Amino acid sequence: MVHLPILFDLLGVFSAAASGALTAVRKGLDLVGILVLGAATGLGGGAVRDVLIGVHPPAFLADWRYLTTATLASLAVIAAQYQAFGVESELRERARLTTAYLIVDSLTLGFFAVSGTGKALRYGLAPVPAALMGVLTAVGGGVIRDMLIAEVPTVLRREFYAIPAAIGSLIADAVNRYTPGATPLAFAAAAATAALRLIAVRRDWHAQLPPARR
Amino acid sequence: MVHLPILFDLLGVFSAAASGALTAVRKGLDLVGILVLGAATGLGGGAVRDVLIGVHPPAFLADWRYLTTATLASLAVIAAQYQAFGVESELRERARLTTAYLIVDSLTLGFFAVSGTGKALRYGLAPVPAALMGVLTAVGGGVIRDMLIAEVPTVLRREFYAIPAAIGSLIADAVNRYTPGATPLAFAAAAATAALRLIAVRRDWHAQLPPARR
Amino acid sequence: MVHLPILFDLLGVFSAAASGALTAVRKGLDLVGILVLGAATGLGGGAVRDVLIGVHPPAFLADWRYLTTATLASLAVIAAQYQAFGVESELRERARLTTAYLIVDSLTLGFFAVSGTGKALRYGLAPVPAALMGVLTAVGGGVIRDMLIAEVPTVLRREFYAIPAAIGSLIADAVNRYTPGATPLAFAAAAATAALRLIAVRRDWHAQLPPARR
Repeated sequence: MVHLPILFDLLGVFSAAASGALTAVRKGLDLVGILVLGAATGLGGGAVRDVLIGVHPPAFLADWRYLTTATLASLAVIAAQYQAFGVESELRERARLTTAYLIVDSLTLGFFAVSGTGKALRYGLAPVPAALMGVLTAVGGGVIRDMLIAEVPTVLRREFYAIPAAIGSLIADAVNRYTPGATPLAFAAAAATAALRLIAVRRDWHAQLPPARR
Repeated sequence: MVHLPILFDLLGVFSAAASGALTAVRKGLDLVGILVLGAATGLGGGAVRDVLIGVHPPAFLADWRYLTTATLASLAVIAAQYQAFGVESELRERARLTTAYLIVDSLTLGFFAVSGTGKALRYGLAPVPAALMGVLTAVGGGVIRDMLIAEVPTVLRREFYAIPAAIGSLIADAVNRYTPGATPLAFAAAAATAALRLIAVRRDWHAQLPPARR
Repeated sequence: MVHLPILFDLLGVFSAAASGALTAVRKGLDLVGILVLGAATGLGGGAVRDVLIGVHPPAFLADWRYLTTATLASLAVIAAQYQAFGVESELRERARLTTAYLIVDSLTLGFFAVSGTGKALRYGLAPVPAALMGVLTAVGGGVIRDMLIAEVPTVLRREFYAIPAAIGSLIADAVNRYTPGATPLAFAAAAATAALRLIAVRRDWHAQLPPARR
């Protein structure tokens, strides 16, 4: 049976890898490129977290389910691409890619904020650094993904991205401290994070710009 | 009281985070982006150093003063931006941003060259690798900053950047070996590094290009 | 005498550093930039591998031969650039740079796939993660090189790049398991990897693209 903290981590890996694979499709990469960008995005955030808190070897090397999950996510994206071919118009394809990307990217924030914060707490970090590790796990894979395709990462663009991750990590902090092992609450934290990100995109929420003559 | 080696590290974090925040302002990022790029630049170089020499968890997770210092630096940049708004012309604003950036970036080289070399020596590295870690700490945050905004890092551009960091690290090596704990000498090494970088920019010093028909 | 696993690692460092230095020449970087990009490319892949499998400090800091080898490779590239100057036409220079780059980049894949897989196995990783570390060592330096010059890494482009590295790593897996210490076989694995990459470029082999209306 899948242990609960690992479940969240694997869900994060799946959604993150799917976001990487979708980005690869959008960028016109070939099948190998899709698998590589999917794996880098799915495993990158957790790898950075594990290296920083001192887990050797990191989970993605010690546990075969990580690489398998990331590969399955990329294969699912490839399969969907083959299935949709010829059925839908170019416009519909683009809309589908964008919507799917937004959803898996938001889910990634939620699952990884919870799993990253929880793992950091279990390895003895204080609540604030643990929440910081939650944010890093949540945004790390996406930063690697965007840097690999030579784009400015989403976390720096004018979107509500770091804020949902930070809120989700702080909720995960509280959940882990006061009711450790409370899975429904952890799921609620992940869902709230993903929902906050989705609503922010939908309502076009932005953080404030500093004043500048431009 | 602040322990001396940590003082240099925190000064490096402050100036590096300020350079990241100023870059974010120049790039038109929002308040969250400024805080994120400030933190990544301020904490990135030391994080890479700590991971490489085997400090788990790295200082920025174990010691709350690191994240606080980086955040204060970014907030100072934001406050200066609000204060200057409306008072100065566009030209003056751009000049102020450029000058401020150059100064904090040079100070970062100095403080981090000294603190990075010193920490590596304390963790048992030989002098040459320790100086290499000094250079990596000094330029690391800036490399992360420039890669995040999808630009070629300063250390690879035609500027005197790696050379001042290397000289500062070698001086720090000597200071640490022959007179450990000599703070005035360490300050002098940091100041010399920063001054060398500033003079190089001012006098337009460049390293030689290899011959090429271009 | 050079211990055998280290020999492969140093050969990988030499060819990877040469590929970084050649890229720096092509990009018009100065002598310092050539040395820095050479060192980052030569030492980056092994550093990531060592950090992930928990070698502290990583080989490039613990063993002076790593930095020396990377520096010698960059100096050799610089020397060749000086020697060729004035002798050859612009067209011949560009062709020489491209050919030299392709060869050292292919050799890097071969040497690092073997040394990375072997080191991961010696540190107790299972065969599949060990092969994954072989791939990461082989492509890691090049990814860092391409990200530093703000280009999309070769491993994501439409080329046979990850596949030769994966095949080489799996062969190295088998060699290490069934006949540990069999150097001729290890050399054959490295040579096969490099050859596969060279043939793929020569014959213009590509991985398949997923279907898309574009």
